[in-house]
Amino acid sequence: MSTNRIFNFSAGPSILPLSVLEKAAAEMTDYNGTGMSVMEMSHRGKPYLAIFEETKAALKEAMNIPDTHEILFMGGGATMQFSAIPMNLIGKTGKADYAITGNFSTVAMKEAKKYGEVNIACSSEDKNHTYIPAQSDIKVTNDASYFHYCSNNTIYGTEWQYIPETGNIPLVCDMSSNILSSPLDVSKFGIIYGGVQKNMAPAGAAVVIINKDLAGNEHPLTPKLLSYKVMIESDSMQNTPPTYTIYMLGLVLKWLKEQGGVAAMEKLKKERSKFIYDVLDDSKMFIGCASTEARSDMNVTFRTSSEELDDKFIKEAKAAGFDTLKGHRAVGGMRASIYNAMPVVGTQKLAAFMREFEVNNK
Amino acid sequence: MSTNRIFNFSAGPSILPLSVLEKAAAEMTDYNGTGMSVMEMSHRGKPYLAIFEETKAALKEAMNIPDTHEILFMGGGATMQFSAIPMNLIGKTGKADYAITGNFSTVAMKEAKKYGEVNIACSSEDKNHTYIPAQSDIKVTNDASYFHYCSNNTIYGTEWQYIPETGNIPLVCDMSSNILSSPLDVSKFGIIYGGVQKNMAPAGAAVVIINKDLAGNEHPLTPKLLSYKVMIESDSMQNTPPTYTIYMLGLVLKWLKEQGGVAAMEKLKKERSKFIYDVLDDSKMFIGCASTEARSDMNVTFRTSSEELDDKFIKEAKAAGFDTLKGHRAVGGMRASIYNAMPVVGTQKLAAFMREFEVNNK
Repeated sequence: MSTNRIFNFSAGPSILPLSVLEKAAAEMTDYNGTGMSVMEMSHRGKPYLAIFEETKAALKEAMNIPDTHEILFMGGGATMQFSAIPMNLIGKTGKADYAITGNFSTVAMKEAKKYGEVNIACSSEDKNHTYIPAQSDIKVTNDASYFHYCSNNTIYGTEWQYIPETGNIPLVCDMSSNILSSPLDVSKFGIIYGGVQKNMAPAGAAVVIINKDLAGNEHPLTPKLLSYKVMIESDSMQNTPPTYTIYMLGLVLKWLKEQGGVAAMEKLKKERSKFIYDVLDDSKMFIGCASTEARSDMNVTFRTSSEELDDKFIKEAKAAGFDTLKGHRAVGGMRASIYNAMPVVGTQKLAAFMREFEVNNK
Repeated sequence: MSTNRIFNFSAGPSILPLSVLEKAAAEMTDYNGTGMSVMEMSHRGKPYLAIFEETKAALKEAMNIPDTHEILFMGGGATMQFSAIPMNLIGKTGKADYAITGNFSTVAMKEAKKYGEVNIACSSEDKNHTYIPAQSDIKVTNDASYFHYCSNNTIYGTEWQYIPETGNIPLVCDMSSNILSSPLDVSKFGIIYGGVQKNMAPAGAAVVIINKDLAGNEHPLTPKLLSYKVMIESDSMQNTPPTYTIYMLGLVLKWLKEQGGVAAMEKLKKERSKFIYDVLDDSKMFIGCASTEARSDMNVTFRTSSEELDDKFIKEAKAAGFDTLKGHRAVGGMRASIYNAMPVVGTQKLAAFMREFEVNNK
């Protein structure tokens, strides 16, 4: 095993806890005396079913998921759910509300238009998604089948600081980039979903936490594996699920519990992001891209006054062991994605590096 | 690393080459000096893109895929393609032909009925799928959009010994359980696809090899990630692909090349399966479930004259290190799945064990 690990600020797929990777490596050719890798196990066999059930139970415990809700493991990431959600839900009234606060909420909204009438309930597009609309800005359609929003905008570095109030309209939330980062009242949501490749596991699956009452209204052309009803009835085993990805999620959830669960994650994310935001607040060189009150604890977006200086910073940071700091082309500048697995020392050192860079490049 | 490896006869997810697992374990926390696991890499970053391109190139080389065809990596396994295929293709004429030779071809056909008119071109259902229909039994519809068949029937232990002749109707083949097991003229096929969890990689993706001329006729309600046109245009990167699964496929393809490629795999599969089929041909106790001329080299199905004796065999075989030999409930008895990664000694020893069991249980 190498100890030559860099600080990986990738937006996703992204950093995983080192101890989890080490455990996966140690168990790779023989899981728990079975003489097989988890990768090689029949998904219907006892050893794998135990892993599957433990992982579901661990997620239920970590997020305090009520019995009204079912946990589904599905192939294809969050983007596949951008289709599945309207195919399953929009048929009830033919309409849905979308809050537009960044790239992925926009992509989700455009996909939903294939399947029904879409209302933009609020949007931050007027200021290039640098802020999150206030509750008073949200216009909910009375007979919308659901209200969709994305709780953390990976590209823009903004995060909803509140859960929108939508009355009787079920809340559907893409939590891909901040799931498991703070305590949450799951009962307020119709569906919480996310691609696993940020706070949960390696890429290749989505977790869908669904109030069972919402299943059963799918469009007749819904692919079988995208039907929430089918997936609930088969306990995500309608076909071979992404078995190893689920195993990795299980390892991450064990690690998360050892760290103190989502309450500890919330404390840590504030601690981690504060190091960088403090630099942005103090600096005469670095400028935060998101408005202060909407700042994300998962993705910090910032820039300097010139693209040349941005490039220099990214290059020198990489040489110093801080990787994947280039911002998305929609925003430019830099982005530090600091998910659950990022050690606090990672942002502490990055902050120190930023201060030093500023001194050296006055 | 444990050397306590059993002989794993699982039908899928299934055995992977030990050297591949060892390589994956060794690279788990630091791939090639990057200081990151492959699991942690941005799919848009240089280190991962190199893995992605190498894997595509290796598959192209291994299967001798012509430039007319594109390789796609998609989420969800073969079952997701059961929906994607009709959603993308059936619209051309509104009709498709399906050959019914087992469970998965039946499931695929039922799913296709959602999207158009389906003609059963041939079926082995009359004899519980113990045989493969002859070319002369196949009734092709003149204006079918495509002809679908499953080249190896995992549950029933039968394998098409020929490529069906369908004139101008594009051939679409589910090769989940015998892909990469013999040389093949890919140009004869409109689409070859398969879940990766048998001869290719751990579960969690499908490989789709598509003649590019077939893309672009998708139903307007096709989910974006199931549109072959979208996937071709984005080189399977419309969203985050199952990055680690693709990396594992790359390792398997390197191993396959070292072994001598698909020509060597064909020789080995004949050698492996012969050990068991020789026992079945000689035995007064064990009975092959598939008709002799349709026998699969990937999945050998057999039974004794009683369920009690079957159970005894499975139990004693497991104790002797031969795992996951229980047959599917649709057939009963036993099934030995012997994919590319199964060492020849695995079936040699299983055959010896079978002969010994017969002597001891006369």
